Amino acid sequence: MGIGNFQWNGLEFVHSRGNPVHRQIFRYLSTLIVSGELPAGTKLPSSRDAARQLGVGRNTVITAYDALISDGFLEARQGSGVWVTYEPVAQTIPKSSSPTGTPLSARGRVLSSFVPDISIPGEAAFHPGLPDVGRFPLATWSRLVRRHLRYGQDSLAGYHSTGGLPQLREAIAKLVNLSRGIICNSEQVIITNGAQSALDLVARMILDPGDNFWIEEPGYAGARQAMTAAGGVAVPIPVDENGWHFTQMADVALPKAIYVTPSCHWPSGLVMQRSTRNHVLDLANTHRSWVIEDDYDSEFRFHVSPAPALHSLASDDRVIHLGTFSKTMLPSLRIGYIIAPKAHAASFQNALAATGQHPSLVLQAALTDFINEGFFSTHVRKMRNLYAQRHTAFIQETKEHLPSWMQFRLAKAGMQVVADTHSDVPDQLLSQHARSVGISVTPMTPLFHQLKKRNGLIFGFAALDCDQRQKALQRLNLVL
Amino acid sequence: MGIGNFQWNGLEFVHSRGNPVHRQIFRYLSTLIVSGELPAGTKLPSSRDAARQLGVGRNTVITAYDALISDGFLEARQGSGVWVTYEPVAQTIPKSSSPTGTPLSARGRVLSSFVPDISIPGEAAFHPGLPDVGRFPLATWSRLVRRHLRYGQDSLAGYHSTGGLPQLREAIAKLVNLSRGIICNSEQVIITNGAQSALDLVARMILDPGDNFWIEEPGYAGARQAMTAAGGVAVPIPVDENGWHFTQMADVALPKAIYVTPSCHWPSGLVMQRSTRNHVLDLANTHRSWVIEDDYDSEFRFHVSPAPALHSLASDDRVIHLGTFSKTMLPSLRIGYIIAPKAHAASFQNALAATGQHPSLVLQAALTDFINEGFFSTHVRKMRNLYAQRHTAFIQETKEHLPSWMQFRLAKAGMQVVADTHSDVPDQLLSQHARSVGISVTPMTPLFHQLKKRNGLIFGFAALDCDQRQKALQRLNLVL
Repeated sequence: MGIGNFQWNGLEFVHSRGNPVHRQIFRYLSTLIVSGELPAGTKLPSSRDAARQLGVGRNTVITAYDALISDGFLEARQGSGVWVTYEPVAQTIPKSSSPTGTPLSARGRVLSSFVPDISIPGEAAFHPGLPDVGRFPLATWSRLVRRHLRYGQDSLAGYHSTGGLPQLREAIAKLVNLSRGIICNSEQVIITNGAQSALDLVARMILDPGDNFWIEEPGYAGARQAMTAAGGVAVPIPVDENGWHFTQMADVALPKAIYVTPSCHWPSGLVMQRSTRNHVLDLANTHRSWVIEDDYDSEFRFHVSPAPALHSLASDDRVIHLGTFSKTMLPSLRIGYIIAPKAHAASFQNALAATGQHPSLVLQAALTDFINEGFFSTHVRKMRNLYAQRHTAFIQETKEHLPSWMQFRLAKAGMQVVADTHSDVPDQLLSQHARSVGISVTPMTPLFHQLKKRNGLIFGFAALDCDQRQKALQRLNLVL
Repeated sequence: MGIGNFQWNGLEFVHSRGNPVHRQIFRYLSTLIVSGELPAGTKLPSSRDAARQLGVGRNTVITAYDALISDGFLEARQGSGVWVTYEPVAQTIPKSSSPTGTPLSARGRVLSSFVPDISIPGEAAFHPGLPDVGRFPLATWSRLVRRHLRYGQDSLAGYHSTGGLPQLREAIAKLVNLSRGIICNSEQVIITNGAQSALDLVARMILDPGDNFWIEEPGYAGARQAMTAAGGVAVPIPVDENGWHFTQMADVALPKAIYVTPSCHWPSGLVMQRSTRNHVLDLANTHRSWVIEDDYDSEFRFHVSPAPALHSLASDDRVIHLGTFSKTMLPSLRIGYIIAPKAHAASFQNALAATGQHPSLVLQAALTDFINEGFFSTHVRKMRNLYAQRHTAFIQETKEHLPSWMQFRLAKAGMQVVADTHSDVPDQLLSQHARSVGISVTPMTPLFHQLKKRNGLIFGFAALDCDQRQKALQRLNLVL
């Protein structure tokens, strides 16, 4: 990491109306930092020196620096001034591992740098995102799968359902209309191998190498990975217990795409307020950006009424909505969907054929029946109530079983909660300790890339009944 | 298409030993042509002028020109000299379709330019690659799927099988060892959503934008598409009824990857000879290139003994072997596999998690049992005999039912045959006529991109019994 001093050589003030000078300084510096021209470890001039060199008031510089500090670009160090701390990460391509053999591509090395968060076989405590598969109506599902296996219709043998089984696309178009207020036709519904495959396809369809994308920090690693592998450059949207901090984002490196989980922020379970939703759509309109609305876990909200999907609020064709059946049904099912922009629905369908990310047609046919015959909504309703009870009970139990330096935050939605760890032991080490007794708790710090890291642990609670939860918590407490 | 004349300004002879001058001219010109610097429509100097300008013998120039003509880079036109006819295509990115909305990425436009060859629902004649799904042991398969649906093991609910179900990876490692002579460990087996998803992943893992890849012409459109979408630049390997013409390829733009279908050339059904196989491996060694061995349809060979897989012949770690169960079992199953290079097996596994191209774990579990309990090999053996009989009968029937200007070529393997069409009507128009009576025949000319197009039609025959074949042939003959 190079340590250097920064000179104000290049700054030219364009005194556009209604654009205060502190915002221009913010924009100038944040763009240099995101592009890597001002690397982490660079010391900035003091506010006094900067003000003198720029010929502006000192308060103007302080206002700009404060905004950059609160967005995680800079850090003020006691007695030693202001330093760049933000590191752009997309450009760092891992080195090839085999100097003598044929090397992987640079993109291949980025793709394979993703180490998935692997659950412990046979142990659901406390892996995030795991539904209670024991409650899934397997007998019904099995009957529906058999129904389509028995006939072996030639429609299921053929290659003509390139965007997904037409009947399933129709069923999902109705489902998202009823549950999320989305108005789309069935041609816009593209059936993928679950949410990750949807992200992989969308990232490639909308990002070219070097394009900026805004993404929540902390946020979903899979989304960040898919967009980084597509050559995108991540720009963090700060998210904390108070919500999404878009206020300063208007001036940060302009986004080709904005990735958000408004129905249920990953991993905190926050639900985005209506005003923030409108703000995101305004930003997208201003910058002609795509919005990727990852609607995972929107079904499991606790004591709050369903928030409208961004897709249903948008007046234009910029929101790409993603959904999955992994959480509502079975993770092993691997069926998800994209609601593609209307103007590009045929393009997404062709691209899906080019990437081959289709689930089995038999399972698509069974899922169609599962939705159309009402089993899906019944199951979701039951699980919503069950998970809401488990959420409340789990938070209560943690107070009894776990040390007080772990402070749990109530979630508004989802299948996991976050605990802030006020401990000298880093969260990654705490996670390793837990793993040594067969328990998965996911550390928060790896979800911070450019902003200041906060320690914490993510607990999936949905898959466990009272007995399983309490035993796991007792086991966990022994090693903490 | 710009018409221009070419000057020999840039050619510098490096008189390296053992590299004759005509080869240097070949290499110089082919590199300029592949890179687009010498576009189609450029006229080259006469051999006499060229010899004079270069200070070499005229025969040397003629030898080089002849080689470039036979490889499809140049065309000699009666009385008007020698012209560049080859067009590099990877650089042509389709224009964005929505000038006012948010545009797709350049890569997204390439990905979506792939218009899949869509079968006609309910009609198997004569779509290529369709197996006879009526002969598939659906009752057995259904029982095996049910077996795994019934228990709903928590291993099937979890997220820990990132490269595929471990038991299936083990079963496939044994299968390719027995049937293809491949020695690999189960960690090298990466389970994908069929062959196209395997191609999509492999292309991204080994190619960076601008990397050349060699690919058969005519050849498999899906492979070309996947590699082009990954940013690769296609260089054609000429293939005709006499086989693969690698002789001149040693001098063409050096490949990062070589894509071949040695067990059953698409679409002609040729099987690559042992000497050519060794030649491919030598070329890959020389250039440190990857070899992608697409082993589709290797199971269905007619009256020839199984050729060893390139992977089994290679002494190094450069061959990536691809297989699929779409043809041997059901197209709708969508399970395929990559045998990854040993040094990069973990990288491929991580990359698969990043792209989410996993099939359902229940189907993976059922497929494991289908292989391990012997149903797979029994079914393949039966279909091999059946398709061999159908191949012979179909060729005979075409002589009775179709006009004599259609000349069918016997295949050595596969589920389709090619007919050369010696007709004034282009093959794409013939294909449209056939479609008007509900019959799919696939035209050959779209499979030529840079070399001289040859008219022909591809007929899938495997899915049809005698009665279905004859009725379809009679219907087809009416419109031809």
